[in-house]
Amino acid sequence: MYKLHNIDGKAKRGELHTVHGVIQTPVFMNVGTAAAIKGAVSTEDLKQVKCQVELSNTYHLHVRPGDGVIRKLGGLHKFMVWDKPILTDSGGFQVFSLTSLRKIKEEGVYFSSHIDGKKIFMGPEESMQIQSNLASTIAMAFDECPPYPATREYMKDSVDRTTRWLVRCKDELNRLNGLDDTINKNQLLFGINQGGTYEDMRIEHAKVISELDLPGYAIGGLAVGESHHEMYRILEAVVPHLPQNKPTYLMGVGTPQNILEAVERGVDFFDCVYPTRNGRHGHVYTNHGKMNMLNAKFELDDRPIEEGCGCPACTTYSRAYIRHLLKAKEMLGMRLCVLHNLYFYNSMMEEIREAIENNRYSDYKAEKLERYNNGN
Amino acid sequence: MYKLHNIDGKAKRGELHTVHGVIQTPVFMNVGTAAAIKGAVSTEDLKQVKCQVELSNTYHLHVRPGDGVIRKLGGLHKFMVWDKPILTDSGGFQVFSLTSLRKIKEEGVYFSSHIDGKKIFMGPEESMQIQSNLASTIAMAFDECPPYPATREYMKDSVDRTTRWLVRCKDELNRLNGLDDTINKNQLLFGINQGGTYEDMRIEHAKVISELDLPGYAIGGLAVGESHHEMYRILEAVVPHLPQNKPTYLMGVGTPQNILEAVERGVDFFDCVYPTRNGRHGHVYTNHGKMNMLNAKFELDDRPIEEGCGCPACTTYSRAYIRHLLKAKEMLGMRLCVLHNLYFYNSMMEEIREAIENNRYSDYKAEKLERYNNGN
Ligand SMILES: [Zn+2]
Ligand SMILES: [Zn+2]
Repeated sequence: MYKLHNIDGKAKRGELHTVHGVIQTPVFMNVGTAAAIKGAVSTEDLKQVKCQVELSNTYHLHVRPGDGVIRKLGGLHKFMVWDKPILTDSGGFQVFSLTSLRKIKEEGVYFSSHIDGKKIFMGPEESMQIQSNLASTIAMAFDECPPYPATREYMKDSVDRTTRWLVRCKDELNRLNGLDDTINKNQLLFGINQGGTYEDMRIEHAKVISELDLPGYAIGGLAVGESHHEMYRILEAVVPHLPQNKPTYLMGVGTPQNILEAVERGVDFFDCVYPTRNGRHGHVYTNHGKMNMLNAKFELDDRPIEEGCGCPACTTYSRAYIRHLLKAKEMLGMRLCVLHNLYFYNSMMEEIREAIENNRYSDYKAEKLERYNNGN
Repeated sequence: MYKLHNIDGKAKRGELHTVHGVIQTPVFMNVGTAAAIKGAVSTEDLKQVKCQVELSNTYHLHVRPGDGVIRKLGGLHKFMVWDKPILTDSGGFQVFSLTSLRKIKEEGVYFSSHIDGKKIFMGPEESMQIQSNLASTIAMAFDECPPYPATREYMKDSVDRTTRWLVRCKDELNRLNGLDDTINKNQLLFGINQGGTYEDMRIEHAKVISELDLPGYAIGGLAVGESHHEMYRILEAVVPHLPQNKPTYLMGVGTPQNILEAVERGVDFFDCVYPTRNGRHGHVYTNHGKMNMLNAKFELDDRPIEEGCGCPACTTYSRAYIRHLLKAKEMLGMRLCVLHNLYFYNSMMEEIREAIENNRYSDYKAEKLERYNNGN
């Protein structure tokens, strides 16, 4: 499944073979929450911005249009017309961040839908069933996302429950993958490491879940309020205790800097809403730092967002035009900024892969950050 | 400039030669009010939906980003990256429909900006100067858009003033086209016929403005509240008094039915916000009538909006997916519906041109309307 091409320091250059094709890592997964990338970006467009993996949110699709609807339509790949890999999260994060009246029990979580207040129950089995209906390439385990900060006592209980839930996820997905009418019988399960900022708990949990021999492991519960310094410290502590010959996925992270630092610590899967969310606000990433396209200084600037960028925005349109579109609240302005940002992230991952292949990751990272932070 | 290929009944099949290429008529101009097609559609996309002419609004661009800015950036073609023809309206219609505190004088109109309330004056010379800065292919004359209904007396004064303004527009555009630093020295001026629903006034005005020998003539002040029947009656009365060997433009019209009827009465230029506005609301045009894509019956419908349609939406995405996007308020849903609608309109104009070439317009129209109105 997973082939490690090279290791440079701790940075991994690998590839994950799936029924929907090969994922070259390190990879940034492009977030399309409700089976669409926000900013009027289609799966056709994703092909133009070097996207390898699309990520959709199980909770959102469960409540609308319903995973039953998507199953009847042949699964998420057919629904959104994307034949490359798709990763679905477990729904857990949204259950813990979007819903109200949550009750966590051993069997799972009782909560109210954020759309219509409808009572919903989701446990490990339900999450696997929904993700099996969606038929994504990679399903994520259903875990508890503990609040930050949490006491040691709370965290211990939570992590233990997450471990028990992971076993149930594995059993249920095995069962589902064995059913005749399952759309994707090769759906992969990634486990999730928790433990907050408690290194010992993180490490202990990493060891326990590694024994389950899953196709990949994620680090969850980071980038939830702790400092970047703390996040890097946890990565340094825990990544060595996750299998090196499996994907290592840092969930929901992050800025270009975060990604560069995490790759150096052995992470090779990422996802984040920043490029799409920032793009919709006219904030764009360049090799010389972030720019606010609404800035008055771009009024007469006929250069592209970034000189030399091959994205659909930069190959045609000027900063002046994009600024005007954003000022006039034309959706096209958001679309162009989102396309540029996704292209920027996906291109950076290409550079990262090449640097690791050439055993010069550390130099690459230093140069990239120098240019990015100092705008030169 | 204008070449008449064929006349079938009164229907004209012509072409207008411009510095930005040839326009095959009858033509539907695609509306991009603020130098962008609403619904996140770019000029790159316009190429995919068979657009021949883009139409932008002078008033909107004058207030934002300012025609001075666009001039400094090389004109509207360079600004929005579109090398085919662009028509700009005069700003008159918006001045009369969007602004407050209007005062109409012989010299022009005093009014307040709809964005910041700023006092603005626009007369024939100002409109020509702004449009010359925008450097569109075709500039429209600055006319008064009288209220509907208007008394004969009001209409007489208004039409007479519009005639005097037209002479001033012609003189001013001639002067501007002769200046060294004018971006498009070949900018064409279309005159506008007014007179409300008073046939005699319409005809008299048509005769007077025809003598100015302009490159094209529009019929303004229709589709402002009168019945379709009245509109067709006015077209039957006035079109024969406008030069047949020039473009005949019915401003702001309309539905597929309106266009089919107007072509039969000798009109060959059209523009309308319906395909974009309706698309943004999930209302799409098909050969079997209009459909509301939010309708529950499309929940599991894996067919395209219209079978056989070659637009970017129909060649890839299903009704079920588009419905989901609209329900989830994903901008992509609007974009796909707008692209389909523009493709539908532009394709219908292709069919119309072919039917006139083959001297079977009347049959074509009957068949098209039968299918459209009865959904079969
Ligand atoms: Zn770019
Ligand atoms: Zn279509």
